Amino acid sequence: MASQPETEHPKKAFGWAARDTFTQNYSMHGTHDSQSYVVDLSQFFFFFRETGEKDVAFKIQYCGICHSDLHMLKNEWGNSAYPIVPGHEIAGVVTEVGSKVQKFKVGDKVGVGCMVGSCGSCQSCADDLENYCPKMILTYSAKYKDGTITYGGYSDSMVADEHFVVRIPDGIPLDAAAPLLCAGITVYSPLKYYGLDKPGQHLGVVGLGGLGHMAVKFAKALGAKVTVISTSPNKKKEAIENMGADSFVVSREQDQMQAVKGTLDGIIDTVSAVHPLVPLLGLLKSHGKLVMLGAPEKPLELPAFSLLSGRKVVGGSAIGGLKETQEMLDFAAKHGVKPDIEVIPIDYVNTAMERLLKGDVKYRFVIDIENTLKASS
Amino acid sequence: MASQPETEHPKKAFGWAARDTFTQNYSMHGTHDSQSYVVDLSQFFFFFRETGEKDVAFKIQYCGICHSDLHMLKNEWGNSAYPIVPGHEIAGVVTEVGSKVQKFKVGDKVGVGCMVGSCGSCQSCADDLENYCPKMILTYSAKYKDGTITYGGYSDSMVADEHFVVRIPDGIPLDAAAPLLCAGITVYSPLKYYGLDKPGQHLGVVGLGGLGHMAVKFAKALGAKVTVISTSPNKKKEAIENMGADSFVVSREQDQMQAVKGTLDGIIDTVSAVHPLVPLLGLLKSHGKLVMLGAPEKPLELPAFSLLSGRKVVGGSAIGGLKETQEMLDFAAKHGVKPDIEVIPIDYVNTAMERLLKGDVKYRFVIDIENTLKASS
Repeated sequence: MASQPETEHPKKAFGWAARDTFTQNYSMHGTHDSQSYVVDLSQFFFFFRETGEKDVAFKIQYCGICHSDLHMLKNEWGNSAYPIVPGHEIAGVVTEVGSKVQKFKVGDKVGVGCMVGSCGSCQSCADDLENYCPKMILTYSAKYKDGTITYGGYSDSMVADEHFVVRIPDGIPLDAAAPLLCAGITVYSPLKYYGLDKPGQHLGVVGLGGLGHMAVKFAKALGAKVTVISTSPNKKKEAIENMGADSFVVSREQDQMQAVKGTLDGIIDTVSAVHPLVPLLGLLKSHGKLVMLGAPEKPLELPAFSLLSGRKVVGGSAIGGLKETQEMLDFAAKHGVKPDIEVIPIDYVNTAMERLLKGDVKYRFVIDIENTLKASS
Repeated sequence: MASQPETEHPKKAFGWAARDTFTQNYSMHGTHDSQSYVVDLSQFFFFFRETGEKDVAFKIQYCGICHSDLHMLKNEWGNSAYPIVPGHEIAGVVTEVGSKVQKFKVGDKVGVGCMVGSCGSCQSCADDLENYCPKMILTYSAKYKDGTITYGGYSDSMVADEHFVVRIPDGIPLDAAAPLLCAGITVYSPLKYYGLDKPGQHLGVVGLGGLGHMAVKFAKALGAKVTVISTSPNKKKEAIENMGADSFVVSREQDQMQAVKGTLDGIIDTVSAVHPLVPLLGLLKSHGKLVMLGAPEKPLELPAFSLLSGRKVVGGSAIGGLKETQEMLDFAAKHGVKPDIEVIPIDYVNTAMERLLKGDVKYRFVIDIENTLKASS
C-alpha cells in the first residue's frame, strides 16, 4: 500500500496536475477515440519530504514539456498514477542541501531529468547506467522508496537525492538547459554508446521533432556530416539553415533515398509511429547502426537478410545515466548546443499539449515556472 | 556475356554437378512444392584456369556440405548459375603455386571457404572484411573476374588466388577442417565482432545444427558459459555431454525460458525459419546482443520497446574475412575445436542432401573426395 504523502510529508508545494483520465472525449458513436482525449491540467497543492541528509532541495525555474508527458497524462503506457504532476526536464536553483551533500551548495544551478532513484546495487547502477536499473524510479507518477508518489517539474519546488541531480553549467541558460535533461541525453547517449561520435562520420537523423533536432545539433557538434530524413519537405530549410544539417531527404521520395543509399555510418531514428526499417537499413554502410529511440505501438518488420548482408545492427537506447548526463551538459555548454524552444506560461500548458499532439512546436515547449506559476486561490 | 570456359581454360577437372532445376517434382495438383525438389547431382567434367602468378592450385581431399549448398542447388535465392558444382568448405593439399605466391608451397595443407575473389579496393577489403565487399565472388555458381563461372569443392582440384586460400594448421585433420571454413568462421566472426568473446560471459546458442554446434564449441573455448536454446528436447543430452554446453532450454517451455530470463550477454541465433524474437530478447541482460546468422524468408517481428528498455541490439553477420578465417583456424587448432562430422563417399551426396533437408545429420556431412571421387566413365 502506498502511504499517505499528505500526512507524512511536511513541505508544501504547488503545481499543475491531471487528476484522472475521466476527462477524455468519446467519438460520436460512443467508442473510445485516443485522439480525442482532453488533457486537463489544473492547479494542485501537494507535499514533499523534508530535505534528507543526501538530498538537494531546489526552486524550479523552468520545465520542458516532453512528448512522454502527453503519453503519461493519457495513461497510454498503462502505468500512470494520478494525480500526475508531469515534467522531467527540470531546471532550477538550489535552496537547501542535506548535511551529507557533497556536490552542491545553495545557489547552484541544477537540473533533474527522467529519474530520481535506482537500486544502487545492480550492475547497471555500478556502471553509471541508472537508466537501465530495473528499479529505476521515474521523476513523476512513480512510487518512491518511501511509498509516496513522485511529482514532476510542472511545480514550484522539488527535493531529490543529490545522485540524481546534475549541475547546469554557466554557459547554458536555464530555459535552454531544461530540454537537455531528457531530449538531450536521449540522443547524446546512443551517439556515444554506438560509436557514432567520431568526427567525419556521416549520420542520418530520422524525424525532426524534439529529439531529432537535438540529434542534429549534437551530431554536428561531434563533427559528423548529418542528413535529416523526414516525411515533411517543409522542414528542409530549417534543418539546413538553422540547425546546420548538411542535407535533407524526403523519405517518401525514392530518388532522394537512393542518392543516400549505403552512405551512412549510423542513423538516429526518433520516430514513434510504425514505419518501415528496410529503407533505412539500405541507407547504412556495411557495419552501420540503426538506433531506435521511439517505441511504435506495433512491432516493426525486420528482414534478417538486411542485417546479415552488411553486418548491420538495429539497436535501442533509453535516456542515459547520471554521469553521462553531466558529461552531455558540459559538452553542450562547451560547444554551444542548445535546443530551439518556445517558452510558455504555465496557464498555456493545456493548449501546448494540444499543439504537441499535432506536432505544432519548434521544437520544445519550456514552461516558465518562476515567472508564471502562481496559485490563483 | 560470359566467355566459354571450355575453350579458354586448359585444365581439366572432375566433380559432381547439378545441371538444372528441371528435376524438381510437382505436387499432385500440379502446383509447385518447394519441399519436393529432387536434388540430382551427377558426374561432371569441367575446366579451370592455368595457375596464375598469384594462384595456388590444390588437390581437394575433403569438402563439407553446407545447408546453403542445398539452397543454391534449388535456386532458392534466385541467383544460381547451372551447372553447379557446389562446395565451399574445401580442404586439400597444394600441387602448384604461381611465381609470385608468397604464403604457400607445394605440399601445404590449405583450405578455401565461401569466396574466391573481391574488389580489393573498397573499405571492406581494406579492413580485411572481403566478405562484405559488394563485389565479393562466391566460390561456386558465381561469375569470376575472367567471366567464367566458379566451380566449388565437390570436385577433385581447384585453383584460387592465394589471398583467398588459408593454411590449415597441423593440429586439425583435413576432414574436420573443412566445415570450419564456412560454419566455423560464420559463428567465430560474430563472437569476436559483437564482443561475445570474453571469458565468463553467459551466451545463448539458438538452434543446434551445423552452425549451432560450432557456436557452442567456439563459445566454450572462448571461456563462456553456454546455454543451448532449441525446439528439440532430444538434443539436450548431446549438447551437454558431447559439446560441453552448460545448460539446455526447450524454447517452447515457458518455465525453462523464464529461468534464463535476463541472464545472457549475447545470443547466437542460427535458425533460418521464421521465429519470434521477443522471447530471445527477453533472455538478454541489459546491453545484450542478439546476433542473427540465418535469414528467414519472411521478415521477423521486432517490437522496438524490447530494444529500448535494456539498450539491446539485434545484429547480423555473414561468414568472415580471410584474415579472421586464418585466426579462427589457428584458434581451433590451439583449443581443439572440431566439428562433429559424418564422412561420406561422393556417391552418397544425393542421399545426404535428402537427409540434410530433414535435419538428419550430426552435425555436418563431409565428402571424402580423395578416396571416393572417381570418374566411372
